[in-house]
Amino acid sequence: MAEKEWASAVTSIAPNEIRVRGYRLDELMGRVSFGEAVYLVLRGDLPRPAVGRLMEAMLVASIDHGVTPPSTLSARNAATTGAPLNACIAAGALAVNRHHGGAVEDCMRLLARGASRVGSGESAAAVADVLIADEKASGRRLPGFGHRVHTDDPRSHRLLTLARELGATGPHIAVAEAITAALAASGKPLPLNVDGAIAAVLADLGFAAELANGFFILARTAGWMAHVAEELAREKPMRRIDQQTCAYDGPAPRELPAR
Amino acid sequence: MAEKEWASAVTSIAPNEIRVRGYRLDELMGRVSFGEAVYLVLRGDLPRPAVGRLMEAMLVASIDHGVTPPSTLSARNAATTGAPLNACIAAGALAVNRHHGGAVEDCMRLLARGASRVGSGESAAAVADVLIADEKASGRRLPGFGHRVHTDDPRSHRLLTLARELGATGPHIAVAEAITAALAASGKPLPLNVDGAIAAVLADLGFAAELANGFFILARTAGWMAHVAEELAREKPMRRIDQQTCAYDGPAPRELPAR
Amino acid sequence: MAEKEWASAVTSIAPNEIRVRGYRLDELMGRVSFGEAVYLVLRGDLPRPAVGRLMEAMLVASIDHGVTPPSTLSARNAATTGAPLNACIAAGALAVNRHHGGAVEDCMRLLARGASRVGSGESAAAVADVLIADEKASGRRLPGFGHRVHTDDPRSHRLLTLARELGATGPHIAVAEAITAALAASGKPLPLNVDGAIAAVLADLGFAAELANGFFILARTAGWMAHVAEELAREKPMRRIDQQTCAYDGPAPRELPAR
Amino acid sequence: MAEKEWASAVTSIAPNEIRVRGYRLDELMGRVSFGEAVYLVLRGDLPRPAVGRLMEAMLVASIDHGVTPPSTLSARNAATTGAPLNACIAAGALAVNRHHGGAVEDCMRLLARGASRVGSGESAAAVADVLIADEKASGRRLPGFGHRVHTDDPRSHRLLTLARELGATGPHIAVAEAITAALAASGKPLPLNVDGAIAAVLADLGFAAELANGFFILARTAGWMAHVAEELAREKPMRRIDQQTCAYDGPAPRELPAR
Repeated sequence: MAEKEWASAVTSIAPNEIRVRGYRLDELMGRVSFGEAVYLVLRGDLPRPAVGRLMEAMLVASIDHGVTPPSTLSARNAATTGAPLNACIAAGALAVNRHHGGAVEDCMRLLARGASRVGSGESAAAVADVLIADEKASGRRLPGFGHRVHTDDPRSHRLLTLARELGATGPHIAVAEAITAALAASGKPLPLNVDGAIAAVLADLGFAAELANGFFILARTAGWMAHVAEELAREKPMRRIDQQTCAYDGPAPRELPAR
Repeated sequence: MAEKEWASAVTSIAPNEIRVRGYRLDELMGRVSFGEAVYLVLRGDLPRPAVGRLMEAMLVASIDHGVTPPSTLSARNAATTGAPLNACIAAGALAVNRHHGGAVEDCMRLLARGASRVGSGESAAAVADVLIADEKASGRRLPGFGHRVHTDDPRSHRLLTLARELGATGPHIAVAEAITAALAASGKPLPLNVDGAIAAVLADLGFAAELANGFFILARTAGWMAHVAEELAREKPMRRIDQQTCAYDGPAPRELPAR
Repeated sequence: MAEKEWASAVTSIAPNEIRVRGYRLDELMGRVSFGEAVYLVLRGDLPRPAVGRLMEAMLVASIDHGVTPPSTLSARNAATTGAPLNACIAAGALAVNRHHGGAVEDCMRLLARGASRVGSGESAAAVADVLIADEKASGRRLPGFGHRVHTDDPRSHRLLTLARELGATGPHIAVAEAITAALAASGKPLPLNVDGAIAAVLADLGFAAELANGFFILARTAGWMAHVAEELAREKPMRRIDQQTCAYDGPAPRELPAR
Repeated sequence: MAEKEWASAVTSIAPNEIRVRGYRLDELMGRVSFGEAVYLVLRGDLPRPAVGRLMEAMLVASIDHGVTPPSTLSARNAATTGAPLNACIAAGALAVNRHHGGAVEDCMRLLARGASRVGSGESAAAVADVLIADEKASGRRLPGFGHRVHTDDPRSHRLLTLARELGATGPHIAVAEAITAALAASGKPLPLNVDGAIAAVLADLGFAAELANGFFILARTAGWMAHVAEELAREKPMRRIDQQTCAYDGPAPRELPAR
């Protein structure tokens, strides 16, 4: 049985010429940011520069969250057994699922339901009430809201502020903000967490929900690399890694220099 | 047996305050590029802007290489069996090893041997001859040189040009270029490939060789995401993926607009 | 925040004494088969010997299926890039999903729906018709029926025959056989494949559907080990593995000696 | 570039006929044990029955070791994030490396060095002294000796006893026992652990050291399945799994019934 031909629209390879979505890869290097290149490879076209900056901010937001996330434990735990770096990263990625990182995807679907109603003429505030009631009725938690450590996630504020400054807001962000407002008004405030903010931004940029945990994995790979390197440099093999007993001993709080 | 305390210097987490290497994460967002943030999380300090641009160019260089790399087959093959995206990415990462992506690490070690001799006063040209002879004598291929498709890898030229423009060259790049020159003079030219160019740049930036395949995985995750999304959108489940019969049907060659 | 105590009922560890589900592990060794031990660790008690034999037959049935399954490609593809054995096995496991190996789980759920109706007094034949109509109406394929190579899967016959001989049949096998009969009578025969037969046996033994692909992975790990060892012994690194061009050159057909 | 044909000697597939190393798979089912089938698929021929029993005992020995091994933490940690079973197993496998499970491979290489000297006429006792001195001189721990919990590993005794009873001992077991005796005589007894015993048995059976951690992964997959099922049944998602605070609450110690 001969296999049929098939096709890919991502990258063309010819001797000494690599083109991603039609652009020469060597010309992209140094001229577009990595965030723009990520957008290009996934969407087929370069974004406008403001969207590129938002992409980068989203990746920066996800780059690390210390030793407590289960995916970071997974990467460090693999390292303590002697796994090579790529296996540590794979182990990290395998711990990014529905309950860790997955809220981005679930929240994108929630906001898409809301945005669709907004598109039909309902107000964001009314839609927010419906979505909250729906999730409550079905016994689900609102994905993208609440955090076990942060009552007011600084990453969310910053990301939505940037989206506004860069002119990249749309109905998904509007619904996310309406939900936040409705929860605050209800006396049970539940802040938009970074997963929810990323979900709103990704959805307004037109990304498919299926890709959501990929962005998290991509950005967090840098964090896992840092943790694996630190594990190997500072700890003995085959230790039991207790996330509770870890103290921070890195640089003291410092201001970002003007740039 | 009580576990001893241990420490991490990467990220501090307090309610509503996340600091990566001492900087507030929300302040980093929108102010530093992702490449700068990657450098920060791995090295402990922000790079100067030129180095940040080089980091981004390096990540862009690795973002995709079409359907033929074994790691891309691995990601697509997982997708065709119905794996979720994170498992497809993990499968991709597990195919990044000594023979695929691993040349960066091996080349970094080779160039480190060379740079050390240059530091002791030998000329780069003399060192290049020694390294070539050593590898030949031990029956190894020169890691970072030669490519099964490209006789003159456009990504390598571009990356070294950028490093020069940005003032980020050092003895490792010098040794890499001396080896290239020696090979060309020998009548058996073997071009510096993208792995070799990345190795030279990473080494001159002071990165540990152990981290090398992590950068490749990080950047290529974007490519794997694009291929997995395409696989799911265009192909039926459980197909045999023959890399040989794939045609490119994406955008025609196009010029990068002035930016 | 102190973590609460938690408990596990699988294995107790004390110095020089390891007990799996209450039995000393060293006493189990040599006295129970591996299939019996698998049953014990998963279910909490030893099976009767006939069930142990069925467990072993089920594992033997899944041990290998040549070079064409995508999980075997995944393991070999990792090997060709230089991955260590454990990463090759992990890559194999990551390709066991809904469309490959996953039919066991789906079929277990289908048969459970049928067995529940049989338990309420309907005949297996009537239930089979309902299930076939339901799946057709919802546009799904019948999981566990049909195979791209085998029109009459020898493993299925053998497994059900053994189950009968060993007195380990129940309503799930009855429903599976009724579906097979109904399909044959319909003029569109679709044989019970090995996934379906394993599903019927596992379900009648009382295993949870969620465990289904674990048995496949466990047994097939042996096959992946054989393929990885062969890949390393016979092939060069970084080859493109085309499953279509593989010929078999192992031992000629031979009879199993009387044992 | 057309790919060359290649060949595999593991399994032949024809419509309705699957042959593993020449034997019909359906005939193997119910007639050979899983341990014999594992030997067959890896070695190309069926073992004599005693060796099959030893294979099964070796797999039983590795089936579980409670919640403390890092690979079990890895599997449970993936489960608590919502990973599907196959990803949990893959995560477990990725934590089987040099420092966990890897002692089997290292010990096989050590014993092979010893067996080779025994084959040249040296006594096992003399060889043991040399190997101990060599490892000490190079600053390495003796792989396969010592355990953080067990001062006298019951699995090792049982496995070597079985090997003797089954007539499956050879020079590797002799060297392992000579090392044990030499260590005991030195006043610093360090017992042969289960990894060492498995290494000795596998080596005397003629298995390649490269396969060693595969057997561990294969057998332990059953344990990981039990732990993942228990995690999902008894615990909430996204918990921090502290191996130290786990109590055993399974069946009380019980005698294995006469079989």
